[in-house]
Amino acid sequence: MRRAESAKQREENEIEFSRIVAFSDGVFAIAITLLVLQLEVKDHVANGDLWPELWAQRQDLFAYAISFAVIGRFWVVHHRFFGEVTGFDGRLIALNLFYLAWIVLLPFSSQVLGDHGGDEAAVILYAVNLTAVVGSGAWMFADARHAGLTRTSAEQARLGRRRALATAAVFLASIPVALVAPRVAPYLWLGLFLPAMGWVTRGSRG
Amino acid sequence: MRRAESAKQREENEIEFSRIVAFSDGVFAIAITLLVLQLEVKDHVANGDLWPELWAQRQDLFAYAISFAVIGRFWVVHHRFFGEVTGFDGRLIALNLFYLAWIVLLPFSSQVLGDHGGDEAAVILYAVNLTAVVGSGAWMFADARHAGLTRTSAEQARLGRRRALATAAVFLASIPVALVAPRVAPYLWLGLFLPAMGWVTRGSRG
Amino acid sequence: MRRAESAKQREENEIEFSRIVAFSDGVFAIAITLLVLQLEVKDHVANGDLWPELWAQRQDLFAYAISFAVIGRFWVVHHRFFGEVTGFDGRLIALNLFYLAWIVLLPFSSQVLGDHGGDEAAVILYAVNLTAVVGSGAWMFADARHAGLTRTSAEQARLGRRRALATAAVFLASIPVALVAPRVAPYLWLGLFLPAMGWVTRGSRG
Amino acid sequence: MRRAESAKQREENEIEFSRIVAFSDGVFAIAITLLVLQLEVKDHVANGDLWPELWAQRQDLFAYAISFAVIGRFWVVHHRFFGEVTGFDGRLIALNLFYLAWIVLLPFSSQVLGDHGGDEAAVILYAVNLTAVVGSGAWMFADARHAGLTRTSAEQARLGRRRALATAAVFLASIPVALVAPRVAPYLWLGLFLPAMGWVTRGSRG
Repeated sequence: MRRAESAKQREENEIEFSRIVAFSDGVFAIAITLLVLQLEVKDHVANGDLWPELWAQRQDLFAYAISFAVIGRFWVVHHRFFGEVTGFDGRLIALNLFYLAWIVLLPFSSQVLGDHGGDEAAVILYAVNLTAVVGSGAWMFADARHAGLTRTSAEQARLGRRRALATAAVFLASIPVALVAPRVAPYLWLGLFLPAMGWVTRGSRG
Repeated sequence: MRRAESAKQREENEIEFSRIVAFSDGVFAIAITLLVLQLEVKDHVANGDLWPELWAQRQDLFAYAISFAVIGRFWVVHHRFFGEVTGFDGRLIALNLFYLAWIVLLPFSSQVLGDHGGDEAAVILYAVNLTAVVGSGAWMFADARHAGLTRTSAEQARLGRRRALATAAVFLASIPVALVAPRVAPYLWLGLFLPAMGWVTRGSRG
Repeated sequence: MRRAESAKQREENEIEFSRIVAFSDGVFAIAITLLVLQLEVKDHVANGDLWPELWAQRQDLFAYAISFAVIGRFWVVHHRFFGEVTGFDGRLIALNLFYLAWIVLLPFSSQVLGDHGGDEAAVILYAVNLTAVVGSGAWMFADARHAGLTRTSAEQARLGRRRALATAAVFLASIPVALVAPRVAPYLWLGLFLPAMGWVTRGSRG
Repeated sequence: MRRAESAKQREENEIEFSRIVAFSDGVFAIAITLLVLQLEVKDHVANGDLWPELWAQRQDLFAYAISFAVIGRFWVVHHRFFGEVTGFDGRLIALNLFYLAWIVLLPFSSQVLGDHGGDEAAVILYAVNLTAVVGSGAWMFADARHAGLTRTSAEQARLGRRRALATAAVFLASIPVALVAPRVAPYLWLGLFLPAMGWVTRGSRG
């Protein structure tokens, strides 16, 4: 039997479908909120020494800001993708879980980046994590489209593929940069990110 | 194309709209619950020494109570705002994420306030964080209204703007107070907060 | 204007009402899950020494089990209460937040109980926290009923009040017990809890 | 009165039923996301020493991957079970909470497994926790079916029972393996898990 035929139709299983989406939203919301746990000021800092201690957190705050924007942006993309989904099966659920496993890893990679921003290993870990999110997302999108589970047009799919490739390319390009100048690499991501936010706003305004 | 025309209408996209609201609620719920993590009693406290150790947590408990009330109040305002929203686009989603990023920071600022309540830096950090929440919220509200995405009347909008200004003014006013007497500043916020709760109850009762 | 008239009707504001319930459920779900954070085995335990280390966690596991049951039970009661609610206003929302503030405190009290079960202070903290949950819950229920916001009959309300009083009485009674024999007090709660679970199952079966 | 008659019908109480499911989903989503907290790199690692430190986390990453897959799979099963449920009563809610208590314990067992993978105690703890999840799940399913609260056919129920037994058998079989070679036992679970994922995908595709 073809996969699209055996899949459950969204409109006949709206509650079950909503549960998948709600579970994903929950995971996104928790992962994005756990980012705050990477910020921490020690108890035993003497009064008057708090300004330098807070200033020492600036890298963690920078990592927090980047990661919040990144997870928020992935949520928007996920959101838009599931808006196009018309049916689902176990394989889509499994791929979605695989994708979420990389999202949930981001608070860890973010914490390492905040604590060790000058170390190439931290930058590479973060870039690999982001590439894995983009890659597994692209896999899920393509798989669902080939199975006829979305109403995405060929045109939109091509556009989405090109964006995913561009995003992954920037993340991967930041790895050699990190080997030379680890502190510069995160700014590459911001460079990617700001126009991407532009795409979001323009994209959904028509 | 005008923004209101290109935006998605809420009633035709109720599921997508609900997802934005549910995600925001999730973030609020997690941020408010993470506040409890700032309370901590060390394992190795000897039996019989627990009373003084708990007493030493009173500042943390005070910060917990203020922050719970503050996040709860912001949730009520957010709740009421999205009740008025009639359409949404990528820009509203992005502004909402920007707003939530400041909400998620509150458990951190609250922990610093609890651990270092007598230090001006802690009070200023907290006041700046609250001002950023109020400011980004006011920005989101104004932006959505100007784009024709809410059914808020000009009258209600003026009232909301005045309240946001008053709230921000108190938070900012607490900063110079903190420079002189850091322990007093949080009581200023309570002074703001209690009548605000009155507004809530009266406001929604008509 | 009478409060019931000025309150929003649930059936005309189902989405807004659902948001309050969903937010509360989120807080319950997070608080109950954060309980697991009180269980912790140190990294540096040598291989072969893990059994004694796990065995040393038995009090924490006991506190985890009690607290999971307690929060779960409060969720069931909250769940049933909001099933009876027919309207809401700002005051109900504020009381609900006040109630939730005590629920969110439970993981902290539970951790203290797990780490210092033999100390009267830990038992009293826990009992006071539970009493505050029961008390604020009873306040919210009574307030909503007097305002005409629920369809609870006088009979059910009397029953509910009696149960809340009985629960609070047991919690308060455990405080003097704690002064003499702190390790015994938690079993009092279990004694309360097991028949309560019976009430739940019988109660909702008709 | 027979239990099925006194139970609330799902279709007449869709909102209340949704709340149970949403609460369960919330607990699953938080438990699966808390898994990331077991990954941690110390602050004070010198630059350049981060690669060995990350490499030292490989067991934790392995435990993270297994546990994410395990909780994800249990969520899928729970999801499918509640899709078959047609009515509910207090007993089903209580059993569901009992089941969730074991799910919430998994991040703890996972952390112990990650930190002490070479220790039989860690493997046995994990296997016992998984067996308890499978066992309490099977109890809940069987109980609901006997009470006439699901539309699962006798055929499906037999299949489900056989799978639960097989899963529990593998987990229990890993305990003697752990006594001899603790590092091997987790691979047994993977051996179980991969075909199980196959069941998922095939199962729901028809």
